[in-house]
Amino acid sequence: MASIQARLAEITGPSGVLTSPDDIAPYLKDWRGLWQGTALAVVRPANTTDASKIIRLCLAENIKITLQGGNTGLVGGSVPGKTNGIVLQTGRLVHRLSVDQNNATITVGAGVTLETAQTAAAKFNMRIPVRLGAEGTAQIGGLIATNAGGSHAMRFGMMRAQVLGLRAVLPNGDILDSLSGLRKNNYGPDLKQLFIGSEGAFGLITAATLALQPAIEGRATALVALSDLDALPKLLNLGKILAGHGLERMEFMGHTGIGMAMENVAGTKLPFLNCPRWCAIVEIVTGDYASAGQTMMCLLEDALEQNLIDDAVPAASNAQAEEFWHLREAVVEGQRLAGPQLKHDVSVAVADLPELIQSAQNQLETRFPDCKINPFGHAGDGNIHFNISTPNIEPDRDAKISELIYDLVVKMHGSIAAEHGLGRLKRQRYLKGLSAAERLILSSLRQDLDPGGIFNSHILREESA
Amino acid sequence: MASIQARLAEITGPSGVLTSPDDIAPYLKDWRGLWQGTALAVVRPANTTDASKIIRLCLAENIKITLQGGNTGLVGGSVPGKTNGIVLQTGRLVHRLSVDQNNATITVGAGVTLETAQTAAAKFNMRIPVRLGAEGTAQIGGLIATNAGGSHAMRFGMMRAQVLGLRAVLPNGDILDSLSGLRKNNYGPDLKQLFIGSEGAFGLITAATLALQPAIEGRATALVALSDLDALPKLLNLGKILAGHGLERMEFMGHTGIGMAMENVAGTKLPFLNCPRWCAIVEIVTGDYASAGQTMMCLLEDALEQNLIDDAVPAASNAQAEEFWHLREAVVEGQRLAGPQLKHDVSVAVADLPELIQSAQNQLETRFPDCKINPFGHAGDGNIHFNISTPNIEPDRDAKISELIYDLVVKMHGSIAAEHGLGRLKRQRYLKGLSAAERLILSSLRQDLDPGGIFNSHILREESA
Repeated sequence: MASIQARLAEITGPSGVLTSPDDIAPYLKDWRGLWQGTALAVVRPANTTDASKIIRLCLAENIKITLQGGNTGLVGGSVPGKTNGIVLQTGRLVHRLSVDQNNATITVGAGVTLETAQTAAAKFNMRIPVRLGAEGTAQIGGLIATNAGGSHAMRFGMMRAQVLGLRAVLPNGDILDSLSGLRKNNYGPDLKQLFIGSEGAFGLITAATLALQPAIEGRATALVALSDLDALPKLLNLGKILAGHGLERMEFMGHTGIGMAMENVAGTKLPFLNCPRWCAIVEIVTGDYASAGQTMMCLLEDALEQNLIDDAVPAASNAQAEEFWHLREAVVEGQRLAGPQLKHDVSVAVADLPELIQSAQNQLETRFPDCKINPFGHAGDGNIHFNISTPNIEPDRDAKISELIYDLVVKMHGSIAAEHGLGRLKRQRYLKGLSAAERLILSSLRQDLDPGGIFNSHILREESA
Repeated sequence: MASIQARLAEITGPSGVLTSPDDIAPYLKDWRGLWQGTALAVVRPANTTDASKIIRLCLAENIKITLQGGNTGLVGGSVPGKTNGIVLQTGRLVHRLSVDQNNATITVGAGVTLETAQTAAAKFNMRIPVRLGAEGTAQIGGLIATNAGGSHAMRFGMMRAQVLGLRAVLPNGDILDSLSGLRKNNYGPDLKQLFIGSEGAFGLITAATLALQPAIEGRATALVALSDLDALPKLLNLGKILAGHGLERMEFMGHTGIGMAMENVAGTKLPFLNCPRWCAIVEIVTGDYASAGQTMMCLLEDALEQNLIDDAVPAASNAQAEEFWHLREAVVEGQRLAGPQLKHDVSVAVADLPELIQSAQNQLETRFPDCKINPFGHAGDGNIHFNISTPNIEPDRDAKISELIYDLVVKMHGSIAAEHGLGRLKRQRYLKGLSAAERLILSSLRQDLDPGGIFNSHILREESA
């Protein structure tokens, strides 16, 4: 009998199976470097049929499978545990990439990166309204499996809202084919929803059709110094009243994060003399540049008059707008370079955002004075990356910090996994908190679709993989 | 032992249980009058807890339950079969109705009508971007359970896209509570999706939180005479290029439908001297009236120049715009009053719409010359109501007509249930066509959630209820 690696290579061809320690190392460790697993092999099918064969073979041989896309997740969901399983990586599922201009859709293999898909759409003057820092590496399949968010979600919804059709392989190897660009289809329950945002627990996504939006014609971007944090939801409301659906993004960040960005990330500029306590980036998109700019000026004038902002710099050019967005990204990178940090990806109702931040900050500053508190993120949809830089790694204290934040979020009826998902980081807590109804549905699907528990078993099983 | 009716009334109070033939008659027959069932009682709980108790009692006594909202469905999904079961009607689930202005959400009990919810949202200058003819009667719970569509879906998506949270009771009485207005929440698989568009197969929706959109500030509406049917997707593309996201609705109808509207429905006006072969209604919504009107004039001028349209009447007032929409609704009502008809709710890619209509029309005219062919509907998302008026009811011929249309739609990778769902009308065909993967997922959920098969069992069970 040939080895399992050899039998896998029979399915994919030799280039589809990696086994040497050097080759597989990058697939075993997550992007943050917090989780490190083991695997027999990394298997990279080039089409749905091969993916199905791989899964059937693993099922027959009781080999555990961990699904992985671009491995850009922040919660450890894409790397294996200490197992003798395989990593099924989607990077070669690039067999499809086509834009249907008349239907305003793009159909892509799961391994196509978001950036590649955006470039293809841009040729037809369209776009996928999902943008994120890792878009050059993150793959469409993973973005759907994790229901990726980002700063445009306030206007266009998360990844789920873009998905019109998909193809997926169940843990038993059966293929669910709903690869369609139809805008309306109520022919039975929409089973593809099961695969969106469930982190591979019910199947492997191999291809998808996404709805496209018109490319940006006119954009006006401004960096503003908020008078205080309470002004943030008020500015959002004002923006919605004045710009309606044209208000595409509203992000916020504080002086701690901006400081770390300026210190650690080259090319970061702040167009204010003194660093404001809180800043926001506002972006309005309309059919033409003049009307976007005009609406932005109205918004800034009204906001100044209502004392919501102390100062504002409307971008004078696309280049300056990109500088503002660079600053926003640099807050993430600057904190990463500053040393150990605890990430908390939480959300509350948009109006509750200042209260959450202020309550958490008061408590954290008193109890953990050594830590640097850096909440920033998506004001438009109440999603805060409540990140804390610590002087060192100290598991007991770190757990207390996280619990403090999570407790406040739960008290305010928020979510402690807003856009990053459960992964390895939050699954234990999630599983413990399931209601009877949730447990029944999840266990029904897990047990019937994957009785052997071979498939991404770390996500929704209590036992560790 | 008290009768089952008495035990149900103990839960709901006497006003929650209807048993006399006169009282229950309206709940046993569908809106089109095609399906007529029987029931022990119609039970109308006033809150989720009571709904759960009713379901547990029925489970214990093996009494079948048919779920019903406003009973405005077109496919017989909301009426019982010839059973000794109950109808669980949601009309008293009006225990909640509140708008969160800052969060731009509305939370409603399942029994609140769409019209009532719209009125509540309008007080805060917002709207639910779903409009349909039956909105005065259709209830939010039913609209979610059937993933209702309508003419705004091209711009805002179907009902699914509006749902942020919901509360549902499983067939075993367990309550799934995800009643939340969070814009981002990836804390585990999004189980509420299972209840949207699955026509009550997995549970009863008792309350929901919907996202609201800004009210319409500036609206420009025009009725146009198309040069031919091929011009329709071209006009859509032109509208998208010129108006971007401002293009909210594009509907079409033909001279047959307009003729039946003018003949049978009072107050129907057509502002053209001769009835065009094909008309479209185009609606552009922007932040202010002037810019909407300006964009509309550009669109109409360009469309005339490109010979996409022969004539156009931009609405001179809101009243005239409503006249155009009245004409569109009158096409439905006019055909209903004209005699027997076969309804086919289908969709294809928007660009394929003319080809589908022309192919079907050619074949139908040859094979069934007695029938009047009236395709109309949602050009913006490829959803055609391909309705056929027949001189009489003749089951064999009628089946052949439907098969002819469905075969063409399937050949063009379309859907034969675009926005109306399966109901009793299409479930047999749907169940026969399931793939192994689909069958596994559906039977897993049905068997584990409802092993006794008491719950809306006519929807996804092969046996008739």
